[in-house]
Amino acid sequence: MIVSKKFETISAQKSFGGTQSVYRHASTETGCPMRFGVFIPPQAAHRPVPALYYLAGLTCTEENFVVKAGAQRIGAELGIALIAPDTSPRGLHYPSEDDAYDFGSGAGFYVDATEAPWQTGYRMYSYISRELPDLLNAELPIDPARIGIFGHSMGGHGALTIALKHPETFKSVSAFAPIVSPMRCPWGEKALTGYLGTDRNAWRAYDATALIEERGWAGPPILIDQGTADPFLERELKPELIRAACAAKTIPLDLRMQDGYDHSYFFIATFMDDHLRHHARYL
Amino acid sequence: MIVSKKFETISAQKSFGGTQSVYRHASTETGCPMRFGVFIPPQAAHRPVPALYYLAGLTCTEENFVVKAGAQRIGAELGIALIAPDTSPRGLHYPSEDDAYDFGSGAGFYVDATEAPWQTGYRMYSYISRELPDLLNAELPIDPARIGIFGHSMGGHGALTIALKHPETFKSVSAFAPIVSPMRCPWGEKALTGYLGTDRNAWRAYDATALIEERGWAGPPILIDQGTADPFLERELKPELIRAACAAKTIPLDLRMQDGYDHSYFFIATFMDDHLRHHARYL
Repeated sequence: MIVSKKFETISAQKSFGGTQSVYRHASTETGCPMRFGVFIPPQAAHRPVPALYYLAGLTCTEENFVVKAGAQRIGAELGIALIAPDTSPRGLHYPSEDDAYDFGSGAGFYVDATEAPWQTGYRMYSYISRELPDLLNAELPIDPARIGIFGHSMGGHGALTIALKHPETFKSVSAFAPIVSPMRCPWGEKALTGYLGTDRNAWRAYDATALIEERGWAGPPILIDQGTADPFLERELKPELIRAACAAKTIPLDLRMQDGYDHSYFFIATFMDDHLRHHARYL
Repeated sequence: MIVSKKFETISAQKSFGGTQSVYRHASTETGCPMRFGVFIPPQAAHRPVPALYYLAGLTCTEENFVVKAGAQRIGAELGIALIAPDTSPRGLHYPSEDDAYDFGSGAGFYVDATEAPWQTGYRMYSYISRELPDLLNAELPIDPARIGIFGHSMGGHGALTIALKHPETFKSVSAFAPIVSPMRCPWGEKALTGYLGTDRNAWRAYDATALIEERGWAGPPILIDQGTADPFLERELKPELIRAACAAKTIPLDLRMQDGYDHSYFFIATFMDDHLRHHARYL
């Protein structure tokens, strides 16, 4: 069990020979207490281990991955720490913060907002890409040179965009059913308008397909799993857009269409093993 | 996906190549709609498969096992169907039904109540031991000759007592942190008094250690995992009582004290693989 003066322990429970904890700390980026889950595998008792950040989707907290993904078993086998942040600031009391499932609380979209009132606390991009890794690299028994990132849906969008912009921090990336181009889907258009305003040029910095076109990706292959029975596939997720962007830049993408799977954690849990092994191969 | 005229499909989702469903049916024993989870492994497309009933603990519904236990992966690998009933009738509107976490809703204790008003609907013993197997043996692609049962805490008590009294139905049994002698712990004393009245002789029919003394067990070894950091260990669970009862009757019991584990689904998930393999060996 990790004890740090930088964060408070909410819970710590033995799991697959390691420890699954939930912590809370005062974030400077979001200006509020933020929770995150940490699974430390047993190997960390002997040496620093690689770490994998998991970004969750709309409506989720740090708890969904911790409880539903079944990742601790594989993390313990492979010796990978698993870090599961929350998906937005909480309790900032902005008007309309809790009015919709796809904007505000539970829907930070991993951007740094520029529009009022969101720009003060809705800074999930800086929180995930800098503040939390700086904190955890210092406080946990993890190897800062071996960090990967993955996520689901809105969190797949977050993982892809943050990895593409911070390859020095995140050496491997994968996603389950990601929003690959928020500029071109209703969830993304709503969120980016609300957080960034109506100038679509500003949105490109948070669009994975645009970032692939502009920056490329020199890291290992990108792994994406997408269920064919996912009700959001055609309207929101559109994996063909990232396939085309990667093909145009000859960036290796392993996009796997999984027959009959939906958008749930039953889908995620089914392919969790493959994703952790993918990251373990490159970290 | 299974479609039956005998139950209604609440959800059906692909998981590890099989299907995780939640169904609802009108139970004659409880007199109310009852939900249960069913995981059908991919092997059932080709032949009837063995099935394993999981009885959950206090406060749980059918959902806890379905979402948190991580059992579908192993069920799919071994070709075992997984059946997760609810833990009590729901919505019977008895006075005080919802007043306590350890009596009434979510706390049926797998007995047939004899005290008013509970005796009408609180018949979880007959529901689990007869009504539900009769229904599911007829409606699911499972082999009625290869059924096992396990459970957690109150559900471990349920699994042990029901297997001991129905070895013709349940051929194998295991438990996570079970209440092994409800006659001798506060949870059990409260529940048995409320459902059965104050005559302790009537309680013996629902006490696993008493049943071992009276009936024995000619089936395969009983597997029990118990965490040493379980906060209920000394006051409620008392595995030493079943160890002594089995020893006196030379009944094979594999009681494993698991260092540092608590009473949660993190503990259950850690040892789920061992339990499913235990049942697969004997079914």
